[in-house]
Amino acid sequence: MPRAPGSATLAELKATAGPGNYLDAPDDIAPYLADFRRLYLGATPLVLKPRSVEEVSRILSICNRDAVAVVPHGGNTSYCGGATPDESGTQIVVSMQRLNRVRQVDAANYSMIVEVGCTLAGAQNAAREAERLFPLSLGSEGTAQIGGNLSTNAGGTAVLRYGMMRDLVLGLEVVLADGRILAALKSLRKDNTGYDVKSLFIGAEGTLGIITAASLKLFPLPADTATALVGIDTPRHALDLLARLRTAAGDQVTSFELMPRIAVEMTVKHVPGVADPLGFGSPWHLLVELSSPNPQQNLTALLTSELEQAAAAGVIQDAMLAASIAQAQAMWKLRESIPEAQRRHGASIKHDVSVPVSAIPALIEKGHALAQALAPEGDVVSYGHAGDGNLHFNLSQKPGADVARFNSRAHDLEHAMFDLVESLGGSISAEHGIGRLKAQEFARRADPVELSVMHALKRALDPQGILNPGKVLCAD
Amino acid sequence: MPRAPGSATLAELKATAGPGNYLDAPDDIAPYLADFRRLYLGATPLVLKPRSVEEVSRILSICNRDAVAVVPHGGNTSYCGGATPDESGTQIVVSMQRLNRVRQVDAANYSMIVEVGCTLAGAQNAAREAERLFPLSLGSEGTAQIGGNLSTNAGGTAVLRYGMMRDLVLGLEVVLADGRILAALKSLRKDNTGYDVKSLFIGAEGTLGIITAASLKLFPLPADTATALVGIDTPRHALDLLARLRTAAGDQVTSFELMPRIAVEMTVKHVPGVADPLGFGSPWHLLVELSSPNPQQNLTALLTSELEQAAAAGVIQDAMLAASIAQAQAMWKLRESIPEAQRRHGASIKHDVSVPVSAIPALIEKGHALAQALAPEGDVVSYGHAGDGNLHFNLSQKPGADVARFNSRAHDLEHAMFDLVESLGGSISAEHGIGRLKAQEFARRADPVELSVMHALKRALDPQGILNPGKVLCAD
Repeated sequence: MPRAPGSATLAELKATAGPGNYLDAPDDIAPYLADFRRLYLGATPLVLKPRSVEEVSRILSICNRDAVAVVPHGGNTSYCGGATPDESGTQIVVSMQRLNRVRQVDAANYSMIVEVGCTLAGAQNAAREAERLFPLSLGSEGTAQIGGNLSTNAGGTAVLRYGMMRDLVLGLEVVLADGRILAALKSLRKDNTGYDVKSLFIGAEGTLGIITAASLKLFPLPADTATALVGIDTPRHALDLLARLRTAAGDQVTSFELMPRIAVEMTVKHVPGVADPLGFGSPWHLLVELSSPNPQQNLTALLTSELEQAAAAGVIQDAMLAASIAQAQAMWKLRESIPEAQRRHGASIKHDVSVPVSAIPALIEKGHALAQALAPEGDVVSYGHAGDGNLHFNLSQKPGADVARFNSRAHDLEHAMFDLVESLGGSISAEHGIGRLKAQEFARRADPVELSVMHALKRALDPQGILNPGKVLCAD
Repeated sequence: MPRAPGSATLAELKATAGPGNYLDAPDDIAPYLADFRRLYLGATPLVLKPRSVEEVSRILSICNRDAVAVVPHGGNTSYCGGATPDESGTQIVVSMQRLNRVRQVDAANYSMIVEVGCTLAGAQNAAREAERLFPLSLGSEGTAQIGGNLSTNAGGTAVLRYGMMRDLVLGLEVVLADGRILAALKSLRKDNTGYDVKSLFIGAEGTLGIITAASLKLFPLPADTATALVGIDTPRHALDLLARLRTAAGDQVTSFELMPRIAVEMTVKHVPGVADPLGFGSPWHLLVELSSPNPQQNLTALLTSELEQAAAAGVIQDAMLAASIAQAQAMWKLRESIPEAQRRHGASIKHDVSVPVSAIPALIEKGHALAQALAPEGDVVSYGHAGDGNLHFNLSQKPGADVARFNSRAHDLEHAMFDLVESLGGSISAEHGIGRLKAQEFARRADPVELSVMHALKRALDPQGILNPGKVLCAD
């Protein structure tokens, strides 16, 4: 069990970082104490800003020797409080923001090596300068850092085509709990030498080691893109259209996002500059995007033809193809403004869940029934990455509803929703991780054998339990 | 440390399996004692053939209690002796061949759940019946079982497009060393609940648990394919052509195989029915395949146009597109007969190595120099999955060479080749795994920190060391 750091430990840590590379004044520390959603307000005696993997190594050696807890910190965009110290004031924060070099871009190998303090947007730009695509894409990409993307196995809007962050990693450099440096930064597509150690650290939220750099997969830049907004009458038809598009275009289907009419209306109403080109005609909207590195693929013709056939078969009600980049951007703005519209609309209850893609209609139908029964003060606003089986099954308060009563429904509704998701073979956290927010619920619901394996792995790699305590796993 | 099973343990194991579900007569056991390449001849008192995950669980409970070593056995096509018991006669063999059901095919979710005793070809067929593709493809697919594909993280000819076996797994069912069943058979694209436990068992060669079933990713069936044989004068031009094709066709580039002229000549000479449509014109051949689920993509026109442009730019010397399925099959037969041609030609020395794709030309050039200096009795026959950076850097004896002297070069040449591969940031085992064959070399060359993490994981999951001892990791 970690303990409070003594003054000698703190002095040694400060000396290791060097002047100007740590923060200990309350005003300076404050930004590191609250998470993005303001769910938690923690405390810490010290924020360290190492500039190299060797400095991270020395910091962890000291903390491990003295059993002091360490909270790694990136862009601070976690939805689950994953990078926030607890209230005890005994946990040291290690900010990774100064490890932000792009070490290598190898265009011929379609790979690059970046340090974890790079923002996601910075990594995307480095790839683009070499005429390559780093495909991970998120709303917070200007702020979120590669370290957080790795540690939460981030998702986003291009998972259907390119996979999650874990799928985009070729190698890692990690500082272990005792300060040893695991140098597994290979940039190979094929390497069958022993266990897949690197994958353990991805999605581990800093509880098994501190990742300092990653070798990432790159892809050809898209040179042709076709974007459409599609109206359908039921989520079941979303699956029909997805199957048609995947058969016609395979992995050129890059995004397949589902939005209910209420989300569209709410977004048009609350967010300036957002319009709905389909004019509220359908109960559900789909935002579909195809892309290809070949400028001669004529994806617009392909998508037009597929949508015409789907309309003739009664699968879709209406569709509009973006005729310009500006129109495509407007369609994406409609989709990406939903969280902001929910915020402006009032109180909300949120669930980031996934099911097999084939179970999306059942999730929506049964989830609606649960919401009506258990939170009658709310309207269901369920939207998201339908092509991946991942929905943000949210509720927004009805206009004029009793907010306190609505909020009081959250616990029971979450319980029922998670039961439903489990019954459909799904996951209670599709892309946001566990952090502190879901650690207890995860401990309660996880398969006991799988949970015990995770605890065994944690003990094997962090026997003192100093790495981000209380995140992912509750105390043994 | 495992010990020899006593007669009571053997009797209990036989009773657990039941009559007809184990083998203990020497003649019956014999097929389980030699590996595919006849590198090893082991011994065992008992071969068990469990029919369910529960039976595997009971077997491992008994073996763990009594500290008896267990060797999981699939289709017995390992190139590294991974499924063969040692010579002590104390290790029990557990054949997985009777756990061979296809439990579920979910076409809408593009997934299926199969037991590990299914052959790879059987799993491919089950997917095809649901109009889906399971893309892993290997020479031994009629015999190799899914359990072995998982446990060695198998590669093959479609990795460029679809990835290795690990990339194709959504979930696993695993029996742990102590007999507990880890039920992680979810079929989700997105699931961020805790550590990536399943990935640990993939490529672990049965040393961390016995996998009993897997949920696998499926893809749309290809409906258009274009295949070409291309002549180039230097491996550097292979990279140029790969970049052109990926830019033009993205992930429609399914295979990109490199063959030297000597491999082509040897294959035409030794294997009946093989011809070279390009007529030995070029120092190197490439076998290129594009595929798409859309029958209207006209990939033949696309490939023709790209090859014409590449020829005009001096990147390629010659090319022939397959005008029929029979022609495409003949091109593939040329490629896939190389191992057989090497066998018929005489003695050989083999290395399954990978480097970043950008380092393929350096690997070939420097590898040739090493081979000429260290094994002058041999000719280099380096061929393979160039698009993945994976070459089978082999030698064949020169006609009439002193075979004993040639064979005696293997050790020093391997040492030098592995040094070269390491200097290029590569791997000493790209797709065949470690098994028993490379365990010592792996222990010598692995990063010490990474190796110590692997040992820590082994101790955490198999504290008695009963699971496939001597494979992957040498004794602690």
